[in-house]
Parts: sequence; C-alpha cells; structure tokens
Amino acid sequence: MVAGYPLYLDLVREHLAGKELIKSGMRREVERVREATAAALAGHRVCLVSSGDAGVYGLAGLVLEELARRDLVLPFKVIPGVTAGLAAAALLGAPLAHDHAVISLSDLLTPIDLIKRRVRAAAEADFVLALYNVRSQTRVEPFMATLDILRETRPPGTPAGIVRNAFREGQERRVVTLAELVPDDADMLTLLIVGNTRTFTWRGFMITPRGYFDRGAHDD
Amino acid sequence: MVAGYPLYLDLVREHLAGKELIKSGMRREVERVREATAAALAGHRVCLVSSGDAGVYGLAGLVLEELARRDLVLPFKVIPGVTAGLAAAALLGAPLAHDHAVISLSDLLTPIDLIKRRVRAAAEADFVLALYNVRSQTRVEPFMATLDILRETRPPGTPAGIVRNAFREGQERRVVTLAELVPDDADMLTLLIVGNTRTFTWRGFMITPRGYFDRGAHDD
Ligand SMILES: C[S@@+](CC[C@H](N)C(=O)[O-])C[C@H]1O[C@@H](n2cnc3c(N)ncnc32)[C@H](O)[C@@H]1O
Ligand SMILES: C[S@@+](CC[C@H](N)C(=O)[O-])C[C@H]1O[C@@H](n2cnc3c(N)ncnc32)[C@H](O)[C@@H]1O
Repeated sequence: MVAGYPLYLDLVREHLAGKELIKSGMRREVERVREATAAALAGHRVCLVSSGDAGVYGLAGLVLEELARRDLVLPFKVIPGVTAGLAAAALLGAPLAHDHAVISLSDLLTPIDLIKRRVRAAAEADFVLALYNVRSQTRVEPFMATLDILRETRPPGTPAGIVRNAFREGQERRVVTLAELVPDDADMLTLLIVGNTRTFTWRGFMITPRGYFDRGAHDD
Repeated sequence: MVAGYPLYLDLVREHLAGKELIKSGMRREVERVREATAAALAGHRVCLVSSGDAGVYGLAGLVLEELARRDLVLPFKVIPGVTAGLAAAALLGAPLAHDHAVISLSDLLTPIDLIKRRVRAAAEADFVLALYNVRSQTRVEPFMATLDILRETRPPGTPAGIVRNAFREGQERRVVTLAELVPDDADMLTLLIVGNTRTFTWRGFMITPRGYFDRGAHDD
C-alpha cells in the first residue's frame, strides 16, 4: 500500500500501477500516519511518500513519533532523499558549500520566538541560511520578522536565492540581494537561501567559498 | 571524461566503462578541479564525481570558485545528491526532523574560533547539529572543543548519533548520549548528529519531534 499527499503520489504515478492507495489532504499528516500505521499493523507492507527527504520536516518524524508513543515495534526503513534546500542550492550554484542552518519559518507548530531566536543566532554566527516554509497566503509575519533580523545583522548586498518548484514543473530561480527581498518573493513552494558574509554572486550564480583559494593565495 | 577521488570513482565503477578518467588523490581538490576545467575548455564533456551532495563541502563550490575567479563561461550543471547528514539521519531514525545546523569541524580551511562560535550559537539556539569532518587522525582539537561547548549548553543525556560509512560497505551506527561521546567515536568517515533539547530516543532510534503531537494533545 502507498500513502501520501495526492500531489506527491501524482509525481510518482509510474510506480503506483496495481498498488492500493491511501490518499489524504494537506494538513492531515497525523491522520495519514495513523492510517498507514493501522494498515501496517494489519499486515500490509506500506510505503509513505514524502517530498524531498522524508526526515526533514517530512513524514519520517511523524511516523516515528507515533510508533514511539505507542511503543509499536513494526519493522520500518527511512529512505533518505534530496531535500528542497539541496535541490534549490544546486540550481543556484553552490550557496551551501560551507556551514549552514536549516530553519522552517512556519509558526504553526513552532513558537515564533524560537524561530526568531534561531534566525538571529544563525545570522550572527555567519551561517548560510536555508529557509523552508517561508510563508503561506496568510502566514507572513515570520518571514517579515526574519527579514528584519537579517537586515540588522548582514549587509544589504548579501546574495539571496529564491527557488520555486525546484526540479518540478513550473521551476523558477532568481538571485537577488537581501535588500531587494519582499514578501511576495515567496509562497508555500519556495525555498529561500541567504548567503553568509563571504557568499558572492557570479553571472547569476551564488557561491559560498570554502577557503581553498585563500590558502592557495598564501601558498603562491 | 570523468574526474574524481579514486575511492568515489570506484563506487560508481559500473558507469565508467569506456570513459576516460582523471584520477587524483585526496587533498588535491584544487588540482583536480583545474584539470577538469582544462579538459572542459579543450572541448570535452567532463563529469566531476563528489560524494554525497557535491554542493555540501564538495567539489561544486570549488569548480564555481575557479570558474568565477577566471570568469570562464563554460556550461555546467550541479546535480544535487543525498548528503551524508541526511543519509546518517535516515539510519538513526528522524533526528533532523526540525531545524538543524550543518557544521564542518575541519579547521584546515576555517579558523577554529569561527567553528567554535558556530557550534555555540547553534547549541544555544537549540538547533540539532549535523557535524561533518568530525576529526582526523591528527586533528582532534575542534572535536574536543565542540564537546566542551555542547556539554556546557545541553543536558548530558542529550542523544547523539554516530554513523560511519552510511550506505557503504562497513556501515556502522550507534546512538549514545552527549555525556558518553569520546574522541575515538569519530574518524574521517563519521557523521555525528547531536539532538536538540527535545530529541528523544526510542529503541535505539533518535527522534526530534516536530510539535504535531503537542498540538494534538491540546486538541484531545
Ligand atoms: C513541509 S516542508 C517539506 C520538506 C521536504 N520534506 C524536503 O525535504 O524538501 C515544505 C517546504 O519545503 C520546501 N519545498 C519542498 N519542495 C520544494 C521544491 N520542489 N522547490 C522549492 N521548495 C520546496 C518549501 O519551502 C515548502 O514550503
Ligand atoms: C569533505 S566532506 C564531503 C561531504 C559530501 N559532499 C556530502 O555531501 O556528504 C567529508 C565528510 O562527510 C562525511 N561523510 C561523507 N560520506 C559519509 C558516509 N558515507 N558516512 C558517514 N559520513 C560521511 C564525513 O563527516 C566526512 O568527514
């Protein structure tokens, strides 16, 4: 049996022939996990489809939380994948080539103060930032607060990469500066990468140096 | 033409039949990138093989730095992959299910003070940590310093996952506590994940909750 958000099942259509499906809508993650668990307990082999890497703001965590809470000893395997941050980075050049912080801006499940604290800590310690769940139609405040913090802590010319629908139909990518970012740059399908103080742009690509050429320069 | 560290070329042996190879040793990344660039300039189509995701402490950054420095306009594509942190996480359960910081402990190219600053910032803002290049035979100090900082900022019972050779021959995984970690737990092939204050273990797996069930509990 295969369970998943209908959009994701649609993306793997060709692998589903002859398989029984458990479909359920967006915000119903917990129900989906419980249905999948029930099916597994009933003896089915169940595959839960998540986007990107199932372990990054994905279903793997929910499944394991559910199994742990009920101490259900079912055999399971988490299969790693290419998370949206890495997919977006590849399209932007090499912005995540050095230390980076991965942060979700959704305050649905995380207190806004904790989100802000993490954004500030990452910005002050000069991490590159990979931001998930940047905004929804109605949830804009965490993104606005993040922009305020970043503009306090980083130069206005800091490169920022905006990727929508990475490696999917409708793919868009743009490299702008921190000063240019506006709320309309992001939606539910957007991944935002903000460079560190050493990230530079070259012909529309974002590059975070690793330091090799600094050393090279000394060696010369 | 295919270029890469011999170990990585060996891992993709079956795709190399009939291809011309550019092999070069470990610490010769810059030379390898320059050879690959020269071959591309001479009209070859060149594939550079990196482990995990080429954009994360990998060759993509070096190639782009080299192209940018010389302003060489060659067509290129970065292909994203499963980085070691995600591979390790999948074997450990779901430790990266919430915000996390990706940090390399190698002070070969990064000043040790910056590494410490980042570890401290990430620890204080309650990020899960995914640590790369944890130690080498001779480079142990950054790992020791990291353990000191983590033990100052997190409870001794904080779960830590040690994965060696994820999804490769010789794979090993272990879940211990922060208090139990010792320098000998890591080498050049190890990825270390240290949980945040909410990460728990269950039957040998590490789980970082996303908060769904907190909300669920309120709803009940
Ligand atoms: C609930 S998270 C799921 C992340 C997923 N498990 C992963 O590892 O990529 C959803 C967020 O991931 C990002 N995202 C997922 N797929 C994307 C894509 N193809 N392009 C850009 N961003 C994407 C967006 O920020 C979106 O709001
Ligand atoms: C120079 S970095 C390269 C990272 C690679 N580009 C990636 O995305 O995984 C090398 C470090 O990655 C980690 N690493 C790479 N492959 C690994 C594996 N199969 N298992 C555990 N750690 C690994 C180790 O921390 C190692 O010291």
